[in-house]
Amino acid sequence: MWKKEIRLAGSGGQGLGLAATVLASAALQAGLYVTTLQSYGPEARGGASRSDVTLSDQDIANPWFSRPALLLALNQKSWAKFGGNLAEGALAVVDSNWVEAHEYPGVLALPLEQMAKAELREKIAANMVAVGVIGVLLDRLPLAILAEAAYLKAPKGFERINKAAVELGWHVMEQIKGGVEREHIGGA
Amino acid sequence: MWKKEIRLAGSGGQGLGLAATVLASAALQAGLYVTTLQSYGPEARGGASRSDVTLSDQDIANPWFSRPALLLALNQKSWAKFGGNLAEGALAVVDSNWVEAHEYPGVLALPLEQMAKAELREKIAANMVAVGVIGVLLDRLPLAILAEAAYLKAPKGFERINKAAVELGWHVMEQIKGGVEREHIGGA
Repeated sequence: MWKKEIRLAGSGGQGLGLAATVLASAALQAGLYVTTLQSYGPEARGGASRSDVTLSDQDIANPWFSRPALLLALNQKSWAKFGGNLAEGALAVVDSNWVEAHEYPGVLALPLEQMAKAELREKIAANMVAVGVIGVLLDRLPLAILAEAAYLKAPKGFERINKAAVELGWHVMEQIKGGVEREHIGGA
Repeated sequence: MWKKEIRLAGSGGQGLGLAATVLASAALQAGLYVTTLQSYGPEARGGASRSDVTLSDQDIANPWFSRPALLLALNQKSWAKFGGNLAEGALAVVDSNWVEAHEYPGVLALPLEQMAKAELREKIAANMVAVGVIGVLLDRLPLAILAEAAYLKAPKGFERINKAAVELGWHVMEQIKGGVEREHIGGA
């Protein structure tokens, strides 16, 4: 059985609900089982809100988990709240412009918001850049399906930007992965 | 404390995830706390999938519930699966074209899909008609906020239809409610 428990965390305005929806929609398209668990409250904006997503190739009995295998943290508060509670061998993707988490071994610190701003002129698309990065790490969802889900679920006027942001995150992560693999075999 | 546990059930293609998103978004706008819990799987289309939504005026400790206070059932399978497991005094809204549930006391059987088709030429908007009906029953979300959420969260090209469908469901339910209240005081 393959199962991945993913926590998407940040402030209420950072589009984590949409990121969860895009991952869920793409995973369903790819034939997986999906649960999403989201909490919102008046305090979420500026705080540490979260969306939990579970993907599996079998029916998911319990959408609850305390220690995700994959954490996305888009701000320092959410890293402080959830970064200490990860599954063994977990990976964390953090926005390096906002989160200080360099000491942790499984952290990928990427300038997600800066990438979205520099490449797409829309820093708000950082969530979708993160979705692209996560897509590579999951190794189960084809880019075409993920990008299409981002397009279809985007708010009015953001269809192309969000699709492009997923592709950007995907390609950057593929390059990093390639670099890591080359290092492992003694290359550059 | 005010809290309402809502189960939205039907087949995978009936837009229950969107209905949950619209309710959640409107409730957040209205200053409430919200959790959503959704399960999707390859078998959902044609079956009995569900989205659970909890609304409260206080922080929600547990998004799980087994017996909702408000059930929406858009097909017979979902009524068969969830109709027997309701909280005391619960209400159930069912699509009368698809669900046989007349014997149950708290049931509102409305031709949701037929209303969407007749008034809006889009039977797929039955989910949003249901959202409007639920909005009246909740008595916490202003119509303007709910309709705006339906507009903003709609898929491309469905913005106006979905907003109009919420308004349709709302107004029909207001009339029914008015009728029930008149009956109670001995009027027509």
